[in-house]
Amino acid sequence: MSRFWSPGVEALAPYTPGEQPKDRTFVKLNTNENPYGPSPRAIEAIRAATGDALRLYPDPTAAALRTAIGARFGLGADHVFAGNGSDEVLAHAFHAFFRGKGELLFPDVSYSFYPTYCTLYGIPFRQVPLDADFSLNTEALAGPCAGIVIANPNAPTGIALPPAAIERVLQANPDVVVLVDEAYIDFGADSMAPLVARYDNLLVVQTFSKSRSLAGLRVGFALGQPALIEGLTRIKDSFNSYPLDRLALAGALAAWEDTAWFDETRHKVMADRARLTAGLQARGFSVLPSAANFVFASPTGLGAAEMLQALRERGILVRHFAKGRTRDWLRISIGTAADCDRLLSEIDAIKAA
Amino acid sequence: MSRFWSPGVEALAPYTPGEQPKDRTFVKLNTNENPYGPSPRAIEAIRAATGDALRLYPDPTAAALRTAIGARFGLGADHVFAGNGSDEVLAHAFHAFFRGKGELLFPDVSYSFYPTYCTLYGIPFRQVPLDADFSLNTEALAGPCAGIVIANPNAPTGIALPPAAIERVLQANPDVVVLVDEAYIDFGADSMAPLVARYDNLLVVQTFSKSRSLAGLRVGFALGQPALIEGLTRIKDSFNSYPLDRLALAGALAAWEDTAWFDETRHKVMADRARLTAGLQARGFSVLPSAANFVFASPTGLGAAEMLQALRERGILVRHFAKGRTRDWLRISIGTAADCDRLLSEIDAIKAA
Repeated sequence: MSRFWSPGVEALAPYTPGEQPKDRTFVKLNTNENPYGPSPRAIEAIRAATGDALRLYPDPTAAALRTAIGARFGLGADHVFAGNGSDEVLAHAFHAFFRGKGELLFPDVSYSFYPTYCTLYGIPFRQVPLDADFSLNTEALAGPCAGIVIANPNAPTGIALPPAAIERVLQANPDVVVLVDEAYIDFGADSMAPLVARYDNLLVVQTFSKSRSLAGLRVGFALGQPALIEGLTRIKDSFNSYPLDRLALAGALAAWEDTAWFDETRHKVMADRARLTAGLQARGFSVLPSAANFVFASPTGLGAAEMLQALRERGILVRHFAKGRTRDWLRISIGTAADCDRLLSEIDAIKAA
Repeated sequence: MSRFWSPGVEALAPYTPGEQPKDRTFVKLNTNENPYGPSPRAIEAIRAATGDALRLYPDPTAAALRTAIGARFGLGADHVFAGNGSDEVLAHAFHAFFRGKGELLFPDVSYSFYPTYCTLYGIPFRQVPLDADFSLNTEALAGPCAGIVIANPNAPTGIALPPAAIERVLQANPDVVVLVDEAYIDFGADSMAPLVARYDNLLVVQTFSKSRSLAGLRVGFALGQPALIEGLTRIKDSFNSYPLDRLALAGALAAWEDTAWFDETRHKVMADRARLTAGLQARGFSVLPSAANFVFASPTGLGAAEMLQALRERGILVRHFAKGRTRDWLRISIGTAADCDRLLSEIDAIKAA
């Protein structure tokens, strides 16, 4: 605590990101990074943008990127907001739409940044319990509230909801924003993006970090009707005029346009997810049905914390949310086919030890 | 207005950045960009970091960059905060230190983003009038307040204060943070950085956008004692774990280490500033004494708005803050020697017309 801090800073509960080890010998299955590199066209576009033009500010409106993103969904640029990673986009959305309106609702097991944003912006929240199988009963998301946040697929469970279930939430709560966080949508779930034109209370958030292999570049975006996009833009322009640098703008645009690379790599991830799921189940793990680039799996024999530690000693990093209902589970990112094989063989070795 | 917006969003007064024309034929003297490109070593470092590693998140702590920045000032990394441009660093500082404590003080003519941050975070503020010659009487910055913000050199005037004058402000206000925004410090003024170790209420903010020619990369930083840096870090980690992408981290580090390029280019800017100032004065302009990479100049004959328009028609962009005490003045960035010559000859042509 410091006497210089504003009230509330002491009470902040910052999000803890997964470890980024300096030691490259780890097989890194802890932060849901894509095992394949970004589109070669994105690399090329970044290299082309790396020159004296870096002395100039980037386009503060990210117009070219927003236009390209919107066009894919049949939406104009006025339906698209771009930010420095989807975490920043989410933060601005909490600020723009959920303050001073009562309790925000989201599931008790979900992306652990949501309560952190609430604390940052003074937003009261109520966590709606998932069912025992970690599925979400969307009927529970109703009643007077400041808004609703649904990660679809959910994190860290990987479980996806069908759009029709989320559409009922939109209909039941017409006066508040329903934010659908689709960070993992491209690995097998159906996006709400086609419903943006029909629901003025729908905000869809996506990222370039996962399915476009650009976690290191920091680009995310939101889709919504113009009144929602204007709310986000007002916050952004009161905070940082230029959140996306010239290289991020160039790289993201090229990655967005390279749909062949996108499809090839995400389908490889999905195929390896199926294989890894079967391999873990064959080794006695419970594995939730995942539509994301990770699986949420509960070991037998060893507890989750012990398995995490044993894997770490063998050079593999996975993620453990060591409290409450997730304490018996590990979130394991889908690596390359070789990474998945290595994980399974290390589990065999741990069980044999 | 939208019924979905949080209270206060309607009342936001977003900052308007200078125009970034798509048409490259303009001589762009409107956003204080450096006319020289960034360090060739920064370009090289960015190219080297552009590859498959972009699939991985960046270091959320920016440890290497913070260590290098601190070392230059004899400070540890725990005295350095890094962010996505100094605008983001300023926003986090307003959030972390100035809320809920009464009125924030800053000069009436200064960086126009300060009142915007105050509105964003609900911080009441009082603007202390500069003297008639646009100089700041630091004695006026005292009394009960939430904190004090001083841009040094000031923008858009370019006028610098000596560190001793700011040190008296630190001594007179020991219980609040005195934020010194040194965006333009490297063009001829003296930094408060050497005083960070002595004053626990001093926060110094700098940027890579100006003297390191990296406006397009979005990197800024703050220097302060560890309690202040921890306050900023708590906000940042509750907002966006990874505000600096891999390319920004690599490019900024290399630019920071290339002190020869830094010195060569900033001295060229300072030499051209002296020449441009003399040229403008010879043409009847009043020009304030500038320690920044711009001059604040008031034309004669034509009004400022008319001169702005006439220059625009002749392919030169400058900036006009068209209200209050700055309405008769233009902020003109220091371009290359050729840019400065072009500006002076176009002024001659306008006066002859």
